[in-house]
Amino acid sequence: ARPRVGYYYNSRSGNTLVARAIGKLRVKDIKSLAIVVRESASVYDAVVTMFTEDVGTLSVVDGEGYLVGIVSRKDLLKIAIGGGDVHKMPIGMVMTRMPNIVTITPDDTVYLAARRLIAHQIDALPVVRTYVMPNGEERLEVVGRLTKTNITRLFVELGDGEN
Amino acid sequence: ARPRVGYYYNSRSGNTLVARAIGKLRVKDIKSLAIVVRESASVYDAVVTMFTEDVGTLSVVDGEGYLVGIVSRKDLLKIAIGGGDVHKMPIGMVMTRMPNIVTITPDDTVYLAARRLIAHQIDALPVVRTYVMPNGEERLEVVGRLTKTNITRLFVELGDGEN
Repeated sequence: ARPRVGYYYNSRSGNTLVARAIGKLRVKDIKSLAIVVRESASVYDAVVTMFTEDVGTLSVVDGEGYLVGIVSRKDLLKIAIGGGDVHKMPIGMVMTRMPNIVTITPDDTVYLAARRLIAHQIDALPVVRTYVMPNGEERLEVVGRLTKTNITRLFVELGDGEN
Repeated sequence: ARPRVGYYYNSRSGNTLVARAIGKLRVKDIKSLAIVVRESASVYDAVVTMFTEDVGTLSVVDGEGYLVGIVSRKDLLKIAIGGGDVHKMPIGMVMTRMPNIVTITPDDTVYLAARRLIAHQIDALPVVRTYVMPNGEERLEVVGRLTKTNITRLFVELGDGEN
């Protein structure tokens, strides 16, 4: 149902410059702070954190602070409407687990982050750094989050001045 | 906590052209279809519609199909976690009502829409046309929705080609 924006847009000049400008921006330049909960937290506590911090997605971490899952407002609404006991249900039971979490690194481009948000139909990506443990296992440290709100704010800043 | 992107970006050339290109895009070129529920629908039915249509915001309309409210995933999560009877509670009781709804028209720029999304801290705007009734009252017809997902998708299309 959506008109082909690409076609519409590419009929105008300046698109190469726009693409180049967009390609220079890095995740670390516009990311937001990471908001995390422990996997032992209840669904209710996760919802409270979501409202207190006013975010739509939470990273879930283990006892050592490494990323083990992610949970969205949509996931929590599905659980809350289902009628289970949200005070007793741990967030670890309802989160999306590794290796199904889509992530991004601070040095990746915002363009790549935006592509992942669209391709995977999600609202936010945890921004991560990878650590290799002595046994060769990889662990992810959460150093931020990159959301559709960050992209929208950036779009406004790119448009400022002439509009 | 967020670094000043504006400063970062404006240190590069070409920003005027980028701003001009962004300023040409109209809401009607990238908007999504309107997803509506009647104000007599229950909170539960609204949540089901949200999942069935896979949207984060619903427009609420009266018996004649005119806009009377808007409800977000966040609003519904707050109600669902509160423990009330979501099957009996009408959506009209929990929605944000006119005149507190932030809207946009098809001929407005995407830039203006993005500014409103950021300024009002919301995820979506109903795209509306205004009708003036014989008694002088104004009514809004919902002709689409403009979301942070639309902006993110546009950002990807603007970045395509050079990246």
